Amino acid sequence: MVLLDGKYTAATIRAEIAERIAALVQSGRRAPRLGIVLVGHNPASETYVANKIKACNEVGITAEKIAFEDTVSEAELLARIDALNADPTMDGYIVQLPLPAHIDEGRISQAIDWRKDVDGLTPQNIGRTALGLPSLISATPRGIRELLARYGIQTAGKHVVVIGRSNIVGKPMAMLLMQRPYLSLPNMTASALGDATVTVCHSKTQNLRDICLSADIIIVAAGQPGLLTADMVRDGVVVVDVGINRIEDAAAARGYRLVGDVDFPSVAPKCSFISPVPGGVGPMTIVSLLQNTLQAYEHSR
Amino acid sequence: MVLLDGKYTAATIRAEIAERIAALVQSGRRAPRLGIVLVGHNPASETYVANKIKACNEVGITAEKIAFEDTVSEAELLARIDALNADPTMDGYIVQLPLPAHIDEGRISQAIDWRKDVDGLTPQNIGRTALGLPSLISATPRGIRELLARYGIQTAGKHVVVIGRSNIVGKPMAMLLMQRPYLSLPNMTASALGDATVTVCHSKTQNLRDICLSADIIIVAAGQPGLLTADMVRDGVVVVDVGINRIEDAAAARGYRLVGDVDFPSVAPKCSFISPVPGGVGPMTIVSLLQNTLQAYEHSR
Repeated sequence: MVLLDGKYTAATIRAEIAERIAALVQSGRRAPRLGIVLVGHNPASETYVANKIKACNEVGITAEKIAFEDTVSEAELLARIDALNADPTMDGYIVQLPLPAHIDEGRISQAIDWRKDVDGLTPQNIGRTALGLPSLISATPRGIRELLARYGIQTAGKHVVVIGRSNIVGKPMAMLLMQRPYLSLPNMTASALGDATVTVCHSKTQNLRDICLSADIIIVAAGQPGLLTADMVRDGVVVVDVGINRIEDAAAARGYRLVGDVDFPSVAPKCSFISPVPGGVGPMTIVSLLQNTLQAYEHSR
Repeated sequence: MVLLDGKYTAATIRAEIAERIAALVQSGRRAPRLGIVLVGHNPASETYVANKIKACNEVGITAEKIAFEDTVSEAELLARIDALNADPTMDGYIVQLPLPAHIDEGRISQAIDWRKDVDGLTPQNIGRTALGLPSLISATPRGIRELLARYGIQTAGKHVVVIGRSNIVGKPMAMLLMQRPYLSLPNMTASALGDATVTVCHSKTQNLRDICLSADIIIVAAGQPGLLTADMVRDGVVVVDVGINRIEDAAAARGYRLVGDVDFPSVAPKCSFISPVPGGVGPMTIVSLLQNTLQAYEHSR
C-alpha cells in the first residue's frame, strides 16, 4: 500500500511553480497577479485568505486582498468585478465565499470572466471542462488529477466510482475522468487523465456497496466520516479521500481530530494506493489555485 | 413490453406548444421567432433546415433561414452572430453544421449568446446544465428526458448506464440524470428527472456487459448497430436507443434501412420499455428545438 502523499506532492509542485515564475521574472516579464475579494470579517474566511496570499507569495505570485465591509451593495461588488475583468494586469481573481445574505452569490460568480476565474466555478469553465476545451478547473478535481498523475496511476479503461455529485468536486471530477485524455495548456504539467468508465453515486444510490466492489478507483467526496469501509472495496483498489470531517476526540489537543470519508484503518490494507486525511487531497487544492493563476497568466499573454 | 413511441409523444407535445403559442398571440403578444443560419448548399443541411422551418411553422413559431454562400468569411459570420445576439425580436437561433473548413466551428458556437442558444451547445449552457441552473438543453438529452417523463419512468435511485460520451448526448444526459431533480422553467412541462446513479461507458470501457447487466435503464448513443444484445440486459430493463444507423438491405426500397444501436428483436422481449428506431428518440429531438425556442422566448420577456 502506497500513501498518496499530498503534502509532499504539493511541495514539489510549488517548487516547480516558483522556479518557473523566477525564470519569467528574470527574463523581464512581470509576475503573475491574483486578486482575492473578501467581503466582511468572517474569521474563517480571513484565515483562508491569509493562507492563500502566503502560498502565492512563496512562489512569486503577487496576491492582494480586495476587502469590502459587509455593508457593500451587490451593485458595488459587481462594479468591482467588472473592473477586475477589464484590468489587463490582473491575471485572475477569486471571490471568497460565503458572501453576506443580501448578495446573490450566483449573480456574482456568473459575472466573473471565465478567463480570470481561477476557482473554476463559472458555468463557462464547468462547460468548457465538460466539452474538453481549455479551461480553469476547480481546485479539488484539478488537485486529484495531479495527484493521480504524479503517482503514475492510469485511468484509461478503469472503472472509477465517484461518491458525491457536488458542483465543485463530483461533477467536474466525473467529466475529467470520462473524457478523451488531453494535455493541459503549454508549460503546465502534462497530466493526462481520462478514458475511464465513470459511475457517479450519491445519497440516493441504492447499491453503493456492489458498485464500489466493481471499482478500480474510488473517489469519495460525500462529507460523511467512515462511509467507505473494508467490505466495500476489493484488493488493489485506489482510494482518494476528499472528505474533511471533524470528530470529537478528548485525547486531541483541540478536542477534535480530522478524518476523511474513508474508514482508513480497515480500508488502507486492501489498497494499492490511498490518500490520507489530513495530508492527501487537502494540500493539493491550494496548489491548484497557484496552477490556475499561472495558467491564466500564460493564457493572457 | 411497452414501446416508447416518440412519434406519438412528439405529436402530442407539438399540439401543446401550438395551443400555447396560439393563446399568446391571441393575447396580443408576438409569436416566438427562430433564426436558422445556413452556410452553403449542402443538400442534407438544406433538407434539415427545411424540416425545422416546417416544424416551427406548424406550431406558430416564426422561423427564417439566414443564408450565406460558402465563400462567407468567419468575420462576416461572426458579425451576423453579434447582430443576432443584439436583436431583441430574435428569441433564439441555430447555426446549421457542418460549416465550411475555413470557418472555426468552435469559435462560431462560442460566440452565440447562451440565452439564444436553442441548440444548447455553448459552454455556458453545458455548464449551466451541469450546475443545475436554468439552461437550454441540447436536443437529444432534452428529448429523452421528456420521453421518459411522459411514460412516467422514474430515475431516482435507479442505476442508469449511458453508452457514449459525446458532447451533445452522453455528457449532458449524464449530468441531467445525476443531479437533484428540478422542474423546467415556468410554462414548460414539469419533467423532473434526476437522482439517478449514473455510469458513463464508451469505447474504452472494458466490462460493458457486466455494467449493463446491473442497469435499470440503458441509454445507448454509440453509433454502432447491434451493440446492445439480449445477453447484456436483465429482465425489466428500460432501453433508450439513440443510434440511427443505415444498413444495407436489398429488400428495402432505398437499398438500406435504419437501425439503432440495440439488437431490437432479441432485446425488446426482456424490456419493460424500449424506444424503437425509427420513431423513438428521433422525433423527440425536433420537438426539443421547439421547446427551447419557446423557453428562450418566455425567458426574454
